[in-house]
Amino acid sequence: MSRSGLVFDRLLQAFRGTPTYSQLLIFVAVSSGGLVAYADAKSDDEIKSSQMSTRKRVVVLGTGWAGTSFLKNIDSRVYDVQVVSPRNYFAFTPLLPSVTCGTVDARSIVEPIRKIIKKKDGEITFWDGECLKIDSINKKVHCLPCIATKSDSSREFIVSYDYLVIAVGARVNTFNTPGVVENCHFLKEVEDAQNIRKDVMLCFERANLPDLDEEERRKDVHFVIVGGGPTGVEFAAELHDFITEDLAKLYPKVKDLVRISLIQSGEHILNMFDERIANFAEEKFQRDGIEVKTGFRVVKVSDKDITMKSKSMGEISVPYGMAVWSTGIATRPVILDFMKQIGQSNRRVLATNEWLRVCGCEDVYALGDCATIDQRKVMEDISAIFKVADKDNSGTLTVEEIQDVLEDIYARYPQVELYLKTKHMSDFLDLLKDAKGDAAKASVDINIEQFKEALADVDSQVKTLPATAQVAAQQGHYLAQCFNKIKVCAENPEGPLRMTQSGRHRFKPFRYKHFGQFAPLGGEQAAAELPGDWISIGHGSQWLWYSVYASKQVSWRTRVLVVSDWLKRAIFGRDSSCI
Amino acid sequence: MSRSGLVFDRLLQAFRGTPTYSQLLIFVAVSSGGLVAYADAKSDDEIKSSQMSTRKRVVVLGTGWAGTSFLKNIDSRVYDVQVVSPRNYFAFTPLLPSVTCGTVDARSIVEPIRKIIKKKDGEITFWDGECLKIDSINKKVHCLPCIATKSDSSREFIVSYDYLVIAVGARVNTFNTPGVVENCHFLKEVEDAQNIRKDVMLCFERANLPDLDEEERRKDVHFVIVGGGPTGVEFAAELHDFITEDLAKLYPKVKDLVRISLIQSGEHILNMFDERIANFAEEKFQRDGIEVKTGFRVVKVSDKDITMKSKSMGEISVPYGMAVWSTGIATRPVILDFMKQIGQSNRRVLATNEWLRVCGCEDVYALGDCATIDQRKVMEDISAIFKVADKDNSGTLTVEEIQDVLEDIYARYPQVELYLKTKHMSDFLDLLKDAKGDAAKASVDINIEQFKEALADVDSQVKTLPATAQVAAQQGHYLAQCFNKIKVCAENPEGPLRMTQSGRHRFKPFRYKHFGQFAPLGGEQAAAELPGDWISIGHGSQWLWYSVYASKQVSWRTRVLVVSDWLKRAIFGRDSSCI
Repeated sequence: MSRSGLVFDRLLQAFRGTPTYSQLLIFVAVSSGGLVAYADAKSDDEIKSSQMSTRKRVVVLGTGWAGTSFLKNIDSRVYDVQVVSPRNYFAFTPLLPSVTCGTVDARSIVEPIRKIIKKKDGEITFWDGECLKIDSINKKVHCLPCIATKSDSSREFIVSYDYLVIAVGARVNTFNTPGVVENCHFLKEVEDAQNIRKDVMLCFERANLPDLDEEERRKDVHFVIVGGGPTGVEFAAELHDFITEDLAKLYPKVKDLVRISLIQSGEHILNMFDERIANFAEEKFQRDGIEVKTGFRVVKVSDKDITMKSKSMGEISVPYGMAVWSTGIATRPVILDFMKQIGQSNRRVLATNEWLRVCGCEDVYALGDCATIDQRKVMEDISAIFKVADKDNSGTLTVEEIQDVLEDIYARYPQVELYLKTKHMSDFLDLLKDAKGDAAKASVDINIEQFKEALADVDSQVKTLPATAQVAAQQGHYLAQCFNKIKVCAENPEGPLRMTQSGRHRFKPFRYKHFGQFAPLGGEQAAAELPGDWISIGHGSQWLWYSVYASKQVSWRTRVLVVSDWLKRAIFGRDSSCI
Repeated sequence: MSRSGLVFDRLLQAFRGTPTYSQLLIFVAVSSGGLVAYADAKSDDEIKSSQMSTRKRVVVLGTGWAGTSFLKNIDSRVYDVQVVSPRNYFAFTPLLPSVTCGTVDARSIVEPIRKIIKKKDGEITFWDGECLKIDSINKKVHCLPCIATKSDSSREFIVSYDYLVIAVGARVNTFNTPGVVENCHFLKEVEDAQNIRKDVMLCFERANLPDLDEEERRKDVHFVIVGGGPTGVEFAAELHDFITEDLAKLYPKVKDLVRISLIQSGEHILNMFDERIANFAEEKFQRDGIEVKTGFRVVKVSDKDITMKSKSMGEISVPYGMAVWSTGIATRPVILDFMKQIGQSNRRVLATNEWLRVCGCEDVYALGDCATIDQRKVMEDISAIFKVADKDNSGTLTVEEIQDVLEDIYARYPQVELYLKTKHMSDFLDLLKDAKGDAAKASVDINIEQFKEALADVDSQVKTLPATAQVAAQQGHYLAQCFNKIKVCAENPEGPLRMTQSGRHRFKPFRYKHFGQFAPLGGEQAAAELPGDWISIGHGSQWLWYSVYASKQVSWRTRVLVVSDWLKRAIFGRDSSCI
């Protein structure tokens, strides 16, 4: 970037990088629109061609949250980065439910991946294709071009890598329920949202046709959502708003026949949120007339009926007009195949270590929804930890000895800190003290059995990270940083002590930082859960939600477009054309 | 509308109705945005329910330019109006080429038909379906609902009418060229434009894949447009702009391989425009590197090659990546079937009389691209005209006698006025004088033979109206006006004298008023042909074009959206995501 506009530089830097609270305010985001042209400028002279020849090739699979975050942060002057993805754009998925009802336009939430990579100093290559097979023995991936049904559609291409970054995401989990794939919409891709939008309109048009009895009309405008997670809940809320605010006026004949059902197998919807939020959402939906059916499991979907089961009511079938299936994720076939190759076939999800490297495979990394981190248990390493801490080999640990390794233990085993927090302990020594009885802290002199006893329960705090955009984006950012400082850290490792070997880990393990979560509930209301148990429910949260989404948009373009879509909706309502 | 805002009323009236030059300026259109909310307001109390029961049922087929224009102008308090169309929206088709490249968003050029009809005082019913059969004997139309592939898709419904207004438009004419339907895009519907957009991006992604030789890459980004009419020319220009302004930066590897070919069977492209415009367009395209191939007729399209023929070069085949077919229109099957029923099977297009009533069929009207007006020839009626004019039955016409019927002749046979204009005559009497020799005007005393001789050539001026949005919209407006004043005109007919019968025609025949035509040529240039042989070419015309399109948009919503799309493009460029 040129040095001509120092003030602008600073301003821009303030708006880039990981989201900070200074970015939250929507009017800041909008009023800074004048900087747009400047932000797109880029200097070409920084590419050092001398580095080109020796660069290692990093191949990234996927352009979702994880892949794109990695691409934005990787130093492409140091690596020869190549991306393979069936989507040549990044989609801001939290706004997908808004696209289903035309509150936001599909095009406003996508950013071409080529635009994102063009802004980088080094060159990044994009291949439009889907990875069919990962060959980690020969360090190659086999890909199929994403082209229309033209004659050369079967042409496969092969990309070799030095490092592979798998970020292909997940597929929808149907739990093998019969009829789901054939009859239900999913809500994972931009195309899904567009198809849902079209189908909602078709349901209304169909219910409006002549020569129908009321039962048929009721069936046509019965919308069923399976899955009470944030996506399902937000879609239900969006649909309710779309119908009451826009469609009711245009379809007066059918507006009173509309029914929205939200089916949840658990006891509550939004069960990953605080209970207060779940209750608020259920109450709001009841007031809105959205039927929340908890404790029901869908067992079959035909083209006319959806069949579900509950303990209290047994099996019931209800006719429906449109169904959206949003119940969780499952592993993609290409990953399942890869897991077989590397001896992970007994697992359901691809496992990585805490540094996001795939377990049992060199130079392959996996992040986002396609993998989970297999957190090393304290109890597996307990003897090694004791040995490392017991510097004088006395067989007991003194307070000083423990203090010395405490930071490394916290870094290597985050569950320890979590456990302390859950038990409301301020210090690791409290834990040991508990194990030893009421003795004074200074006199803690602990042996291996006491050490084991003290830490016996900490592994219960090992938790799988949620499959969210936030986790994926942070993982992409983290991994790119590791790649960027690989040389520096080889000489000066920054990670914790190795417990089972000598020396230190090269990098700090990945640590997820939760920035909170949102659930828009319709009618300009939202529920927000922020770090530090701060909860916000009601009308104000809507604006918080707008602000955060606006500030988190991937580029100035999408930011301005989404905000202008919101304005459009506020002025003109949503469009009801079947396109 | 309520009487509370008289000034607003006046202002709004100035912005409604047929376009006037006061509407042309874009900033007027935009700056008046504050009136939006008011324009949408509507009072419900004016519907006179007493009229409801006796209202005649008018069924309109189609929601294109003709149908929508009719709906906007028909007095739905007097008629029970029902609309059947497979599209529940009106599309501003002149901007379709802009949608193909994302200059304008698809949703910005459509307006839900239910919104349009909701603004009217009386109720209008919309059925989402496609007319399959017109049964003019029983006064019914058979329709198929437009629903997704659900189990009840075969359900037909029947709508009865008192008056039928056919405005279903036309289909694309492939001239039975093999392979066109399978391999070419059309550009008539909004979906077509969206598919083209996606396919353009896929062609670029395909050309960018690894392991291709240059010839294959060249093939992938060879875009062929068949048909050098306004649509084809505008699409070629849009595509060229899209590639040079946006894609060249994102696809540096393939940008020099791109080729755009425009194939035209005639000698010149844009042959319905003034020759100066055609020449300008051809020269501009040459400078831009768009290959214009005139005198070529496409004879076959395979999935890889397009085969064409010219007199000078014989048959040649060229490989292509994407082809758009835009060569003219043909009659839809439902109309062909209807023509058979009413004895028009020897014709290619459905014929109406000058009042838009279908020839040979009571109470059925046809307008827009699905019909042509069969203008009555002067020579068919020449004896009758003479008889009507010759009031005193003297066997000769005096000047006064001619003056008395002149207006009626002009009204009934517009070709007479056209002929005078072509011959640079100021007066009908000049024509008769010519026939009689150099005698003084006052002494014109003309017999039937001389009368015939004078008018012998006027029918050469009978011209078919072009299949444009302008014609369709004017016809819709005209027919609605006729319906609205049917009672008044039954008592006080306003049409010309009936030549073959006694009395007057109830209405004036439809007369097309040409407001000019535009052809955007890319690079902010456009060619405009305005009434009175006024021609404008170059950069200024672009703004004229923008202004006219903005002012002609069907609603305030689409107007604002299109203008905001233009602004978006100007700031951010076009989107290149494959969605």
